[in-house]
Amino acid sequence: MTDVLLRGGHPWGRGAPADILVRDGRIHLVAPGVEAPDARIVDIAGQLVLPGLVEAHCHLDKTLYGGPWVPHSADDTLAGRIGNDLGRRAELGVPSAERIGALLARMSAAGTAHVRTHTDIDPQVGLRGVEAVLEAAASAPVDVRQVAFPQHGVLINPGTAELLEEALKSGVEAVGGLDPAGIDRDPVRHLDLIFGLTERYGAHLDLHLHDGGSLGGWELELITERTRALGLGGRVTVSHAYALGQLDDAYQDRLIQGFAEAGVAIATAAVYSFPVPPIKKLRAAGVTVACGHDGIRDLWGPYGSGDMLERAMHVAYRSTFRRDEDIELALEAATYGGARALGLESYGLSPGDRADLVVVPCGGAAEAVVVHPARTLVMKDGVVLHN
Amino acid sequence: MTDVLLRGGHPWGRGAPADILVRDGRIHLVAPGVEAPDARIVDIAGQLVLPGLVEAHCHLDKTLYGGPWVPHSADDTLAGRIGNDLGRRAELGVPSAERIGALLARMSAAGTAHVRTHTDIDPQVGLRGVEAVLEAAASAPVDVRQVAFPQHGVLINPGTAELLEEALKSGVEAVGGLDPAGIDRDPVRHLDLIFGLTERYGAHLDLHLHDGGSLGGWELELITERTRALGLGGRVTVSHAYALGQLDDAYQDRLIQGFAEAGVAIATAAVYSFPVPPIKKLRAAGVTVACGHDGIRDLWGPYGSGDMLERAMHVAYRSTFRRDEDIELALEAATYGGARALGLESYGLSPGDRADLVVVPCGGAAEAVVVHPARTLVMKDGVVLHN
Ligand SMILES: [Zn+2]
Ligand SMILES: [Zn+2]
Repeated sequence: MTDVLLRGGHPWGRGAPADILVRDGRIHLVAPGVEAPDARIVDIAGQLVLPGLVEAHCHLDKTLYGGPWVPHSADDTLAGRIGNDLGRRAELGVPSAERIGALLARMSAAGTAHVRTHTDIDPQVGLRGVEAVLEAAASAPVDVRQVAFPQHGVLINPGTAELLEEALKSGVEAVGGLDPAGIDRDPVRHLDLIFGLTERYGAHLDLHLHDGGSLGGWELELITERTRALGLGGRVTVSHAYALGQLDDAYQDRLIQGFAEAGVAIATAAVYSFPVPPIKKLRAAGVTVACGHDGIRDLWGPYGSGDMLERAMHVAYRSTFRRDEDIELALEAATYGGARALGLESYGLSPGDRADLVVVPCGGAAEAVVVHPARTLVMKDGVVLHN
Repeated sequence: MTDVLLRGGHPWGRGAPADILVRDGRIHLVAPGVEAPDARIVDIAGQLVLPGLVEAHCHLDKTLYGGPWVPHSADDTLAGRIGNDLGRRAELGVPSAERIGALLARMSAAGTAHVRTHTDIDPQVGLRGVEAVLEAAASAPVDVRQVAFPQHGVLINPGTAELLEEALKSGVEAVGGLDPAGIDRDPVRHLDLIFGLTERYGAHLDLHLHDGGSLGGWELELITERTRALGLGGRVTVSHAYALGQLDDAYQDRLIQGFAEAGVAIATAAVYSFPVPPIKKLRAAGVTVACGHDGIRDLWGPYGSGDMLERAMHVAYRSTFRRDEDIELALEAATYGGARALGLESYGLSPGDRADLVVVPCGGAAEAVVVHPARTLVMKDGVVLHN
């Protein structure tokens, strides 16, 4: 494998230009004026270098990406969307390794190196979603981690709990959950079940929480309590957490303090008009914030491009971030924050880190988020994929 | 001027493919299988044809577009942003005909044919903004209409009212306003003043209303009453109207009924996390809905691309529109709705209409909004600008 020398770029966070020498899939050296006579040299003078983007919340198994436009056919209720999803996925050939592969290719072209995807698990689809994702991921230049996701409830959908466990046994990295109160109707039993699986299988946990207001706030307390009691800090993520953005400041602060102490991460997708969690407060308290697209071109909605810089723009925009240092918080969520939530090792721009790199033709990080121009170069594990 | 024949496209709303023959800057014929041996033929088989996009709310005079990235330097308050704007615009050479020209070129490349821009008028800047916009517009392939905009208040900023009148005398098409209660502190006198100018100069009126809740609702009543009493229907637009999205359904319905009867239009930009007006309800009642970017890359915020299909995506997304026919409401706002708000004549895709056309490589309108790919062709007054 030939060494690659990225010449003259601005590694994000370093403050000054530096060459990056890549050897054997790792970052070997980051310094000005590196000499490497045998390396392939790529001139990226004046451009921004980021570590590979992290898509921390999506639903690859549901996607229709790369296929013809499919008009949305559900009504405006959650029940309508669930019914439509169940009814039409077979007709449309979902889950499809081909569609998933098309989306992963797009994500990779936009510089995404790591993906956490919530894969539907239910008695009808069984583990076919898990298998389709595995098949597509096997030939994609992206690292994919799955969450066994009970999209249609656990307690209210007999047979699902057993399938979640089967998925974990087969190597799926994380267990999911879904509105323990609002959907599954028994928050304590729901949480005990998925936290139990998490502990038993040394897994991660990433739970969808749309439940709002004081109900969602209380569920966040239950999640924090369990994370702390079981010592699962760093392995628990709450996705969406709309309630956080709806509670009064004092309660918000109390919950955020709890996340920081227990090690609960928050993932947001800034979808539609739903509340975005208070990212600045979360980061100030030391809470990990990650982000992702949620659904991309699927039966739940037609939006989403697969570009994590564009998604970071949505996160920053919905947070009313205008200053560079604030906008960079959204980029942090799409990079280091996602990496921490997923438990990635050797992630970053330092010697020894995996050479997953993205070059953006911008002078700075805030501009990269706001403008999100086409990437100049994408590298995965030291291999130049797009240039 | 050679005739142009657009062959095989799908004119939006027609339901079937049709050729479009353009002659002398107008649409001459729309029909299948047009024969035009002397025309320049452009094959756009399977692609969507839209009328020129309408940017109904922006601030060209403030833009830094096309220049280097300028980090946002205001604090998080409205007063901070106003002070920062006043302090830094001279330093940054704003208003700049060059920057405005760069933005207009970008807008045109994305298919925008008509722009309404709110130009700052105040004793410090005088009419220099108006002049800079005129200078840039003179050589841009976009029709630009200005609103004389009292960004820093009218009543609270002596000398501004006289300048607004001077702007109207010099040919500016519309008079603006700004939070008659929240900023200018005397809603009745503010509204009487700008409605008076509107009537006296046969102008349009387009007012920024950020005031929320019941205060904003009451101001919407005052605006509706004056529009009706003065017979200004079709010439009055309320921009933003955040209050509309915050009021209970019954009050919302009452206000909307008033807009429909009086002829008040609503313009939204779906900015940041501010409430988006209830577009579906407004359209169902027959109220004109237009949209625009608001600021683009300026001292008020760094966001905005100048692409009205992308902006329509934001409007649809924030409205939680998922179905094709709902998403098309956002495109309607970016085309016909904007045209009605601005009072454009000969706008559309019928014979006799001005040949301002955009071709999008998509099968349908909802897809064009969601994906907003680069335009295949842009035509202004019969001239192919980008192809
Ligand atoms: Zn999700
Ligand atoms: Zn504005």
